[in-house]
Amino acid sequence: MNFHYPNGRRYIPKQSKGLPTKADKQLSYSNRGMTLEDDLNETNLFYLEQKLAVIHKKPTPVQIVQVDYPKRSAAVIREAYFKQASTTDYNGVYKGKYIDFEAKETRHKTSFPLKNFHEHQIHHMETVLLHGGICFIIIRFSATEEVYLLPANHLIAFWNRMNSGGRKSITKQEIAECSHPIKLGFRPRIDYIKVIDYLYNLTGEKGIQLQ
Amino acid sequence: MNFHYPNGRRYIPKQSKGLPTKADKQLSYSNRGMTLEDDLNETNLFYLEQKLAVIHKKPTPVQIVQVDYPKRSAAVIREAYFKQASTTDYNGVYKGKYIDFEAKETRHKTSFPLKNFHEHQIHHMETVLLHGGICFIIIRFSATEEVYLLPANHLIAFWNRMNSGGRKSITKQEIAECSHPIKLGFRPRIDYIKVIDYLYNLTGEKGIQLQ
Repeated sequence: MNFHYPNGRRYIPKQSKGLPTKADKQLSYSNRGMTLEDDLNETNLFYLEQKLAVIHKKPTPVQIVQVDYPKRSAAVIREAYFKQASTTDYNGVYKGKYIDFEAKETRHKTSFPLKNFHEHQIHHMETVLLHGGICFIIIRFSATEEVYLLPANHLIAFWNRMNSGGRKSITKQEIAECSHPIKLGFRPRIDYIKVIDYLYNLTGEKGIQLQ
Repeated sequence: MNFHYPNGRRYIPKQSKGLPTKADKQLSYSNRGMTLEDDLNETNLFYLEQKLAVIHKKPTPVQIVQVDYPKRSAAVIREAYFKQASTTDYNGVYKGKYIDFEAKETRHKTSFPLKNFHEHQIHHMETVLLHGGICFIIIRFSATEEVYLLPANHLIAFWNRMNSGGRKSITKQEIAECSHPIKLGFRPRIDYIKVIDYLYNLTGEKGIQLQ
């Protein structure tokens, strides 16, 4: 819990003027140990509880090879391998529209490397757009804690540029131009629905026509 | 490959008049060893290839406990458990609309037991409907190879009847009244999109307003 003086300044305990205390660390977002995935899961739970949207992360795809069935207890998977996802990680419904996105974070400071995606994920995004779905990526720069929503059509353009021999990443400048910053909050942590409302003109509408 | 005489009768090889041959077995749908899941996966692949819809089965949710990282080879999951799914198995986008469904088969002949579903799946379906998504179940009676599409609002009503002390299953008669039969085909095998077009008046439209 944070205390505030009547003047609105944050209360800083005296001992923290030397080495940072545990309380100081908790004040900083980066030290909370929350990943982008954690934040999005909490955001989606908030949307669900508030009846704003139904968006879930898909389970990690696993190729199961061997399963044991011990007596009187649950089946145990004894050999399995991670499979490459053929789609994006998150999807669901908002105001009747299909929502589909991928979330990635990077430690890079000046650009976002495109190797974070696979060819078939880009292809999936193209297909979703073709069918009138809302598709985007959420990017977090972990060093600066900046979060952006980049519509899939822009990502696809950067991907095609790379495939034509261009650069293998998106510069920070390009992200600033093509994407929308998402301010970090408390509840929800990453309020991407607000950006969707703005981008696709859904404010106050229920299932408005996008095409 | 099946041969047909000019009169349209199916060619039956002579030796098959005794014990059934392998070819005979292949003629029967039930003996193909295809599950409802196989059929739906092929159907969804067909829809994807034909650019009709983007609908995928979600991966089986697994709780991973222990992973080995052998040198020079892929990570091996050594201990994991099946988790109960919190949503339905299939979702995606068709004509801009969010599609969400669960598929179940039963060996019962006269009714469909509601124990095939979990409370939270029913709750998920209610939520999807609330947000303007298209939600239903696909039921197969394996003994008779009949396949039905039952809109989620009916399933929810039967579920509530059970929770109020009513019967724990849906009778075949009720299914005939509330659902839509899906004729089995070759490509696609279970053409449920046709039923959606009909039920939600989407024929010839792209992303038509449902609310």
